[in-house]
Amino acid sequence: MAGIRDVAKKANVAASTVSRALNNSGYVSQTAREKIKKAVEELDYIPDTWLRNLYQQKSAVVGVIINSLEYPYFATVTRFIENKLAEKGYSMMLCATQNSKVRERIFFDMLKRGQIDGIIAEYLLLDDREYQHIQKPVVTLDRHLLDIPLVCSDHHTGGRLAAEHLIQKSCKKILYIEDNSSYLSSTPSYQSCVAFKDTLLQAGITPIPAKVNWKEEEKDYFHTFATKILTQHPNIDAIFAADIPAMALFNEATRRNIAIPEQLKIVAYDGSPWLNQTLRQLTCIEQPFEQLAEKSVEVISALIENKEITDNVSVIPVKFIQGESS
Amino acid sequence: MAGIRDVAKKANVAASTVSRALNNSGYVSQTAREKIKKAVEELDYIPDTWLRNLYQQKSAVVGVIINSLEYPYFATVTRFIENKLAEKGYSMMLCATQNSKVRERIFFDMLKRGQIDGIIAEYLLLDDREYQHIQKPVVTLDRHLLDIPLVCSDHHTGGRLAAEHLIQKSCKKILYIEDNSSYLSSTPSYQSCVAFKDTLLQAGITPIPAKVNWKEEEKDYFHTFATKILTQHPNIDAIFAADIPAMALFNEATRRNIAIPEQLKIVAYDGSPWLNQTLRQLTCIEQPFEQLAEKSVEVISALIENKEITDNVSVIPVKFIQGESS
Repeated sequence: MAGIRDVAKKANVAASTVSRALNNSGYVSQTAREKIKKAVEELDYIPDTWLRNLYQQKSAVVGVIINSLEYPYFATVTRFIENKLAEKGYSMMLCATQNSKVRERIFFDMLKRGQIDGIIAEYLLLDDREYQHIQKPVVTLDRHLLDIPLVCSDHHTGGRLAAEHLIQKSCKKILYIEDNSSYLSSTPSYQSCVAFKDTLLQAGITPIPAKVNWKEEEKDYFHTFATKILTQHPNIDAIFAADIPAMALFNEATRRNIAIPEQLKIVAYDGSPWLNQTLRQLTCIEQPFEQLAEKSVEVISALIENKEITDNVSVIPVKFIQGESS
Repeated sequence: MAGIRDVAKKANVAASTVSRALNNSGYVSQTAREKIKKAVEELDYIPDTWLRNLYQQKSAVVGVIINSLEYPYFATVTRFIENKLAEKGYSMMLCATQNSKVRERIFFDMLKRGQIDGIIAEYLLLDDREYQHIQKPVVTLDRHLLDIPLVCSDHHTGGRLAAEHLIQKSCKKILYIEDNSSYLSSTPSYQSCVAFKDTLLQAGITPIPAKVNWKEEEKDYFHTFATKILTQHPNIDAIFAADIPAMALFNEATRRNIAIPEQLKIVAYDGSPWLNQTLRQLTCIEQPFEQLAEKSVEVISALIENKEITDNVSVIPVKFIQGESS
């Protein structure tokens, strides 16, 4: 089997450079990185991190619990998590519960039996206490669980930035889309709605709430939803909504020849790569997808390796991106 | 632990009805189905199929190899595969290789060691012979591997239907987008391009090829690509392309005030749910996502359970969907 020295030789760099590149620690030039990557592929080299995990009686598998890959937020952050796990020598087992407690329980039992080493939980239905009692590595992403490390975006700032932007653009009749489930109000992401509303109220504007039903499985749901909203609220001058409803509302407004941004301004929340598929780039609050993934992988691997966790809560900044919809 | 009788009692139906509903065999009314689903959730009931797998010294895990969740085709079919696997009592371990042989090899080694029971492979980089010699359950989805069961769409008919539609619409200057890698030409899906081209040539039309680079990671790649295509080929009257480039071309043409479908017709290939995010519904050839998932799960679970496979190749029909872009 090829070793690190074979890779170094083939790539014509020092073994220590290969080590730095594979562990993502310290500086490695782009040219060296590419040569190393090529050598690794050509030699079918399996990095030490993987071997170490595999021979330490660990499964070298981390489970990731989401709701469904259908949602851009989950699809995007999950993709980054898999990459970050691979860099640390772990495979990812994905569990999309699709709102089923049974699916989550089976997964949870795999953790108890040691079939997986840890769980990064982005969406949970089981009772908090079950996770607290398990005494196994668990990290939550955007979900409060007492005594369990949390990684989340700075949603409060996200909601505030969106509101301040619309105030600055002199919007007065502002509609915002909330989730139609009690689940969401228990998550950190709900803070974006709270902060959005509070910031507007402080500026003397009372925003109009509307509810979206994410669990709706009908193919045309978001189109129908957008049609209904624009018919019921013909006089609104701004909308704040998650990526998918924001895209549907943008499309429906364009079909109705409502001038964007002149008559109607739209700010999307999450800023997933799916927004790239719209006719015009939407203004958005962008989640730090890659950093969320990086931090949660850093914490779960530290827990698995019995290392000290310095911060039990990691809040990562969001970004305002000016697009053509506001 | 709750048993099937507890579920039956709570749902107020016969135990045999619960069994039929959970195994998806035989008729169960929608009302009964919903009551059973509710009872299963409330009782945290774990279906027998799962328990059977877990106590038969199997991992009860099936690996799924894809390239990346970024691509709508993979994201959509993977979502269905996970659901179908769950119905049969298997969890899914996802391996997005992102074009890395190393990632694929690690996964492949998990199969050898029995950490996973089988593999559904949608994208493979390792040498065919490695898979042939492993003597473990492997099914390929849309990828030829000698002696290994294959599930794929009827891409040949898909390409022909797209061409016939554009011929019928009197298009003459037709551009089609091919993949810029040698990988694709070894897959069944390449037949869509072959059939598309052949059908047009037989009708006396020589289509114009253009190449897309799926591995390009630049955020704006597809926008830049669409801009380049429409600038280089101002006189084309039709385009045949995969969902993502088709959406980018539709958006860029609309921005340029090219009238669709009057001046330019677009037919997308795959018809993933992502197409729902466009301003107008695109005409498309729709892949049988759910049936592809269902069939590949049926085959892999039969192989894992040492049952007879009746057909080594399963070709599933595609559908032509008339949208507003042609």
